[in-house]
Amino acid sequence: MKESVGNQSIVFEKPPAITGAASTVGPKEGEGPLASYFDEVCDDPTFGQDSWEKGESEMMRRTVEKAIKKSNVPKYDIKYIFGGDLNGQLIGTTFGLKDMNMPVFGLYGACSTCGESLSLAAMTVAAEYAKSAVAVTSSHYGSAEKQFRFPLEYGNQRPLSATWTVTGCGAFVVSSKSETVCPHITAVTTGKIVDYGIKDSFNMGACMAPAAADVIYQNFKDLNVRPDYYDKIITGDLGSIGKKILIDLLFEQGYDISHQHDDCGLMIYDNEAQDTHSGGSGCGCSASTLAGYILQNINSGKWGRVLFVPTGALLSTVSYNEGETIPGIAHAVVIEQK
Amino acid sequence: MKESVGNQSIVFEKPPAITGAASTVGPKEGEGPLASYFDEVCDDPTFGQDSWEKGESEMMRRTVEKAIKKSNVPKYDIKYIFGGDLNGQLIGTTFGLKDMNMPVFGLYGACSTCGESLSLAAMTVAAEYAKSAVAVTSSHYGSAEKQFRFPLEYGNQRPLSATWTVTGCGAFVVSSKSETVCPHITAVTTGKIVDYGIKDSFNMGACMAPAAADVIYQNFKDLNVRPDYYDKIITGDLGSIGKKILIDLLFEQGYDISHQHDDCGLMIYDNEAQDTHSGGSGCGCSASTLAGYILQNINSGKWGRVLFVPTGALLSTVSYNEGETIPGIAHAVVIEQK
Repeated sequence: MKESVGNQSIVFEKPPAITGAASTVGPKEGEGPLASYFDEVCDDPTFGQDSWEKGESEMMRRTVEKAIKKSNVPKYDIKYIFGGDLNGQLIGTTFGLKDMNMPVFGLYGACSTCGESLSLAAMTVAAEYAKSAVAVTSSHYGSAEKQFRFPLEYGNQRPLSATWTVTGCGAFVVSSKSETVCPHITAVTTGKIVDYGIKDSFNMGACMAPAAADVIYQNFKDLNVRPDYYDKIITGDLGSIGKKILIDLLFEQGYDISHQHDDCGLMIYDNEAQDTHSGGSGCGCSASTLAGYILQNINSGKWGRVLFVPTGALLSTVSYNEGETIPGIAHAVVIEQK
Repeated sequence: MKESVGNQSIVFEKPPAITGAASTVGPKEGEGPLASYFDEVCDDPTFGQDSWEKGESEMMRRTVEKAIKKSNVPKYDIKYIFGGDLNGQLIGTTFGLKDMNMPVFGLYGACSTCGESLSLAAMTVAAEYAKSAVAVTSSHYGSAEKQFRFPLEYGNQRPLSATWTVTGCGAFVVSSKSETVCPHITAVTTGKIVDYGIKDSFNMGACMAPAAADVIYQNFKDLNVRPDYYDKIITGDLGSIGKKILIDLLFEQGYDISHQHDDCGLMIYDNEAQDTHSGGSGCGCSASTLAGYILQNINSGKWGRVLFVPTGALLSTVSYNEGETIPGIAHAVVIEQK
């Protein structure tokens, strides 16, 4: 099976199907505008566990189980799980998946991980290495604040450019064929690391926007399309500041995406009412929004073709404290109803 | 192109070639028994930088450049880099690769990452998504001790079961075809997360051995072979304690690998003379040993077929301090001269 291959892209001749998708979120996301789209809103932010991290793992476990159940794919047809989260050494993923008894590829692309996992799952299934594979990504407000900024107990003040890490998980069963009409992954564009030299960890949108612009530009070039090829171009978690930068950067390159562009980070909360400043973030932000809101709008026929672009800021507290910049990365996935 | 696919394995019909490999290590590895096999031994453990982490990134950058140069593959034919390291949020990889201007998939499988990156690079190239892809993995003693145990400045005492994290990097150019005779990746077996409930972070060998046994057993079953199918079965960093457990576990399943088995962690240092206790560890241990010692023995014709099995212990200081176990994971790659 040969695929048409651009410079950074793959267009699948036999596009894999998303046969099942599930989302689980925490209480704050359950008070936001997308609440009705999620499969489960858990009122307990630790999901019945005794730490944020164990709660995140439990959230991931539940979401994968639900996606598999919704897909109607037998478990023995699922050969691989591609999974990741924001915690150091991927402990959310390790302890979330360890009892699943399936081969695991652990991934880290910061908040771009949902795009990375979907890309690799689609590549694996389209190459006929597996009938089905699972892609899963999570983030958790409590574990991420402890990991990247300050433990919640400090009651630290946050500048208005800061985003709010989503407690959420999205899981997807990607299959070589489907019994029913469902969304398909028709192409993927893999991003480069892009570094504009920004060092402000409270302004992630500005760190990530150049990487998003780069991969969207490359997608247009590789597929030889213009922005109106897509009904929606939806980035992961640029927030209000990153959104402006993205639109400006692509406008300079001759592409106006202002009519198509949305950002999961700007959709998942009511930023004024919920006091989430620049918007939602975290790799669970784009993953849960895709599994909940975006795929349902594709399924309903409202959107025929979506360019989904999770965006990641590549830093750790160590690199930040050693004075390094915060480079960005983004991976684009084309999803359409077939 | 169809591949014969076992339960957890892929046997490539058109096996991708390792057209270039390079290794870079620090001064301690340069005093060990494999010194003459490495491309570069750097006397400065920070590789000319002002921190362990920046040194690790510089080591990775140099190693990738050297592997590409040795492969004679033009850079524009390399479509992806699959890379990872042990630092939280993969900062070694991010800052090592950020100026390469190539699409990046970030991976985390603890010390199994070299197997994970080679597997995904081989799968990608064999599926004709790319003419060539790079797989790279590094670890650094200074950054890893700070990350997982104690900063070096503490002068902490280490029990005899502890391993010594290798300062080393291995990079591999995986290509759809080669101009010359070289080692090929003929099959991969992807590991599950295996948890025997061990909680001792100073005894990583015991944490990882069950995962190594699991994936080697599965490789035998999927490929329908016995241990003597391989000239060597080489695990990543089980050390002396993990080696015994691995051999015992497989013996219980009816497979005696004692004649074929070696462990990179037991080869890279002279444990008595160099005071490295249970052996070398870290994902750079297996990566640099493969790029240096193992591939040269395959190239020379000494070994016809090797099962290479990097082994990872899945923990972070957070999971460890919250009382979690240390599960293991291992990925197996079959490498033979073609």
